[in-house]
Amino acid sequence: MPAKDTLFEEDAIASSKKKPAATARRKTADQMAAKQRDISVSEFFTKNRHLLGFDSPLKSLLTAVKEAVDNSLDACEEAGIVPELSVILEQTAEKRFKMIVEDNGPGIPDTHIGKIFGKLLHGSKFHKLSQSRGQQGIGISAAGMYGQLTTGKPMRVISKTGKRKDAVEIVMTIDTASNKPEQHSREVIEWDKDHGTRIEIEMEARYQKGMRSIDMYLKQTAIANPHLTLRYTAPGEEEVVYARNTTVLPPETVEIKPHPHGVELGRLIAMLKDTSSRSLQGFLQEEFCRVGPKVAKNIIAAAGGGLTEKSYPTRIARDAANKLHDAIQEAKISSPPTNCIAPIGEELIIKGLKKEIDADVYIAATRPASVYRGNPFLIEAGIAYGKPGGVGLEVDEESGRIKKKAKVDVTEDLVGAADEPARLLRFANRVPLQYQQSACAINKGIIGTNWKSYGLTQPRGSLPIAPMVIFVHIASVWVPFTSESKEAIASYEEILKEIKLALRECGRKLGSHIRKQKRIKREHDKRSHIEKYIPHIGIALQEILGMSDTERDFTTDTLEDVLHKSRKF
Amino acid sequence: MPAKDTLFEEDAIASSKKKPAATARRKTADQMAAKQRDISVSEFFTKNRHLLGFDSPLKSLLTAVKEAVDNSLDACEEAGIVPELSVILEQTAEKRFKMIVEDNGPGIPDTHIGKIFGKLLHGSKFHKLSQSRGQQGIGISAAGMYGQLTTGKPMRVISKTGKRKDAVEIVMTIDTASNKPEQHSREVIEWDKDHGTRIEIEMEARYQKGMRSIDMYLKQTAIANPHLTLRYTAPGEEEVVYARNTTVLPPETVEIKPHPHGVELGRLIAMLKDTSSRSLQGFLQEEFCRVGPKVAKNIIAAAGGGLTEKSYPTRIARDAANKLHDAIQEAKISSPPTNCIAPIGEELIIKGLKKEIDADVYIAATRPASVYRGNPFLIEAGIAYGKPGGVGLEVDEESGRIKKKAKVDVTEDLVGAADEPARLLRFANRVPLQYQQSACAINKGIIGTNWKSYGLTQPRGSLPIAPMVIFVHIASVWVPFTSESKEAIASYEEILKEIKLALRECGRKLGSHIRKQKRIKREHDKRSHIEKYIPHIGIALQEILGMSDTERDFTTDTLEDVLHKSRKF
Repeated sequence: MPAKDTLFEEDAIASSKKKPAATARRKTADQMAAKQRDISVSEFFTKNRHLLGFDSPLKSLLTAVKEAVDNSLDACEEAGIVPELSVILEQTAEKRFKMIVEDNGPGIPDTHIGKIFGKLLHGSKFHKLSQSRGQQGIGISAAGMYGQLTTGKPMRVISKTGKRKDAVEIVMTIDTASNKPEQHSREVIEWDKDHGTRIEIEMEARYQKGMRSIDMYLKQTAIANPHLTLRYTAPGEEEVVYARNTTVLPPETVEIKPHPHGVELGRLIAMLKDTSSRSLQGFLQEEFCRVGPKVAKNIIAAAGGGLTEKSYPTRIARDAANKLHDAIQEAKISSPPTNCIAPIGEELIIKGLKKEIDADVYIAATRPASVYRGNPFLIEAGIAYGKPGGVGLEVDEESGRIKKKAKVDVTEDLVGAADEPARLLRFANRVPLQYQQSACAINKGIIGTNWKSYGLTQPRGSLPIAPMVIFVHIASVWVPFTSESKEAIASYEEILKEIKLALRECGRKLGSHIRKQKRIKREHDKRSHIEKYIPHIGIALQEILGMSDTERDFTTDTLEDVLHKSRKF
Repeated sequence: MPAKDTLFEEDAIASSKKKPAATARRKTADQMAAKQRDISVSEFFTKNRHLLGFDSPLKSLLTAVKEAVDNSLDACEEAGIVPELSVILEQTAEKRFKMIVEDNGPGIPDTHIGKIFGKLLHGSKFHKLSQSRGQQGIGISAAGMYGQLTTGKPMRVISKTGKRKDAVEIVMTIDTASNKPEQHSREVIEWDKDHGTRIEIEMEARYQKGMRSIDMYLKQTAIANPHLTLRYTAPGEEEVVYARNTTVLPPETVEIKPHPHGVELGRLIAMLKDTSSRSLQGFLQEEFCRVGPKVAKNIIAAAGGGLTEKSYPTRIARDAANKLHDAIQEAKISSPPTNCIAPIGEELIIKGLKKEIDADVYIAATRPASVYRGNPFLIEAGIAYGKPGGVGLEVDEESGRIKKKAKVDVTEDLVGAADEPARLLRFANRVPLQYQQSACAINKGIIGTNWKSYGLTQPRGSLPIAPMVIFVHIASVWVPFTSESKEAIASYEEILKEIKLALRECGRKLGSHIRKQKRIKREHDKRSHIEKYIPHIGIALQEILGMSDTERDFTTDTLEDVLHKSRKF
């Protein structure tokens, strides 16, 4: 559009010649500068609470439960305690609910309760690289803040750190202007528990069952956390218990140091400034994973710029740091260790799916660990496939006969009908994700997989059409969410690739199941045709050969046997 | 599924009887608590920089330009200066670009430069209710932080607040661990400008043209800001100038007080605590808009709970505040004032569309202001409709003849082909939105409008199919974005409704244009049929009546004239 641009340019010159109409000055720079103020992070998130998942009364209740349950599970696992949780929802007014979440975790020393529940951006998980559900130090404080904003009521926390310790009850709010906890009362109380934490928050909320409900979130949590026993009391209902499948905790995940390839230049400069190492070689070996003496020497040699193994880290100038960064990017360094990630494992995924979903066939695949932006991660997938309300067929191993299976009763709220898109169960570090499916890398990975080659229908750019639940779990030391409300995974290329590979593994097994089902179906149809005629053949033979009824029945039975054994599956 | 639940319950009882396998305690509560740390907001957003729009090198460059341009425009308008901006992008290395944005704004006193560019969550726009592009006090500091993270280089700011003031150059970085500016140097320099601000940030980036490019963002900015002259130099290209359409600034927007209906209970309690008013009546009248003595008295009377007009605000207990809040919700209070919102206006929307988009017809509609969550807002819509590369028809007013229009050349990068979905131009407080279209209320409003009734094709749940650009602008004192990167508008019911009403207004005008076009087309087809035969009729008449060639030509001409005048449009 060069012609057009020239035209504008002339216009502009013309307009800049006749000076812009002198407008009355509204404010001076000093007046404007005087209005600049700090914004506390609590104020920011109060005004922008939809960013944290507290937009509607319906979603807010789910988000609050989720944050509390995530924290409890993290705490139990970190302390090595097999978790036993209770979630109770009570309706207190037309639009108000009280959420009570109690765990048997290690408890929190009462001097720390204030900051953990009453300060945004405070926590133990942000600064370390290890797999956990929470990672930001925002969630549960934000839930308390939302309760306080909508009901004016403080939250109540009870905690006990051991058999011989006091159970302490603290009632508190958050001072949003300063982002600090305000303790209203502290009391030692009786609590018939050895250790654990209980949190109560009352908030404006709405409760509803269905696809993205709290019930569904808890059910999915039970699937992905087979070591958890969870007691859940929905508003005005009886307690439901999801019992654990195993008492074995997920393996303890190790905290790792950053991998050199994932460190940006600015971060490298900050690390050089902050390190306590007194030589560049020491710095590289101590602050990163996977850097031994040889790799460190190679990097320093490749960097040049006057850097030596003995260069004093805090004195390295920006240009030299830049060269060091380039050399690190070029260096061959092995992938980060993967013992920092705990997969659920194929066996437990299948167990979990079986427990909560009735289907025809269950498949799972756990991929080896991989790396994005220097962060180790791992993808697992699972499939529960079956025709809801339909009747499956199977081959009896002994007789070779095709028999009808017991009615396949697929739990209606998880598996869809045969002509509906597959349903997704998305998990990040064992936490179910319920909103923003279409923005999630998991959704993209499933759409990007060719399900037709496994015998399913798949409209272009869509999910496969099948009575099927697809389970995908990403475990990582740092899950890249697309928002603070942690609802969708960002589509890093490496993550997408691994999702597809895991799905392909499951797909192949599913494909052979579907092909076999189709083969059995064809065979069954053929045979039932023939079977229909066998009695008539019997009668004809009886007439022609003058057989007795017993002889006739023996003949037809033998014919049927021969027929059933004639083909193998 | 009660049967199932019972089953689990039994399992649970069984499993709780045999105590969970004693797992070795991994960490104690004290060990875990000792690891709790504060997280600075800069650290948080460095690690989560994708939340602010700094995820890919491509998007980061756009986000940085956008933040700088938004700030410049806000500053100019607040100071009453007709804005003249320059945006320069220079490639400095294979994957590095320097962004330079300069304005003729009021400048920034040099004592304030540090905090404005070097501290996240610091600004003048967060705490007040008035229409501006920026609202969070994050954007430009985050751009500097991203530059520093990816290149290690500081940002450079030049500012001058008046003719007789010094131009000051400050070189600075952000200390992310403390979220504070670090000044590297401060110098008084020569600058041939009366007043203004210039910012330079170098960053890892990628530059590309296309639908969501910087070029497109700036072009759209010019459409929505007809009072702006913008000089833009893309990497390695000539300067392009978007000249202003008008020297009249948007009307000065007034800062308003919150509307009582939009204030949550927690906020009300905080306001009661912070107010300097010494009576409840005074508090209601002074801290809110639209509350006069009568309304205040009515609210207090309805609240009951021992509250009187003279109750001392800071001594009102939570229960009484709760009653007050309920009474406020029930009270009849007029809508908030709307002089706090500056629409672009139908005339300037059409001018803007015409300047940047060649189309057949231009339509615009500005709705009256409305309210969501107590915040005034206003929706405007515009349409540019035309067949790209096609040939339009129009009726010549004098002769009544249908003639072909000059080739309708629709700028390829804005209007799509006739069989493509309409393209959207989304704006919030005059800022173009380029990402996350499908998550945006504007997209939902367009999909939710019945375009078939205006003569367009529209697949179910999709955008209309037409060679058309749809422009939608939301102006508000607080735009509810779905993320800090400000890419999509949250779908508040009131906002969706207004979007649809604005589109309907445009749609009706478009519909009558399309119907007229279709009528002309039909008429044109009929006539061209008849016209084809007129010469043959002439020849036949000549033979039958023995006319001369002149008589024959006169007859056919007359016939054609009669034909063209026979129908009116």
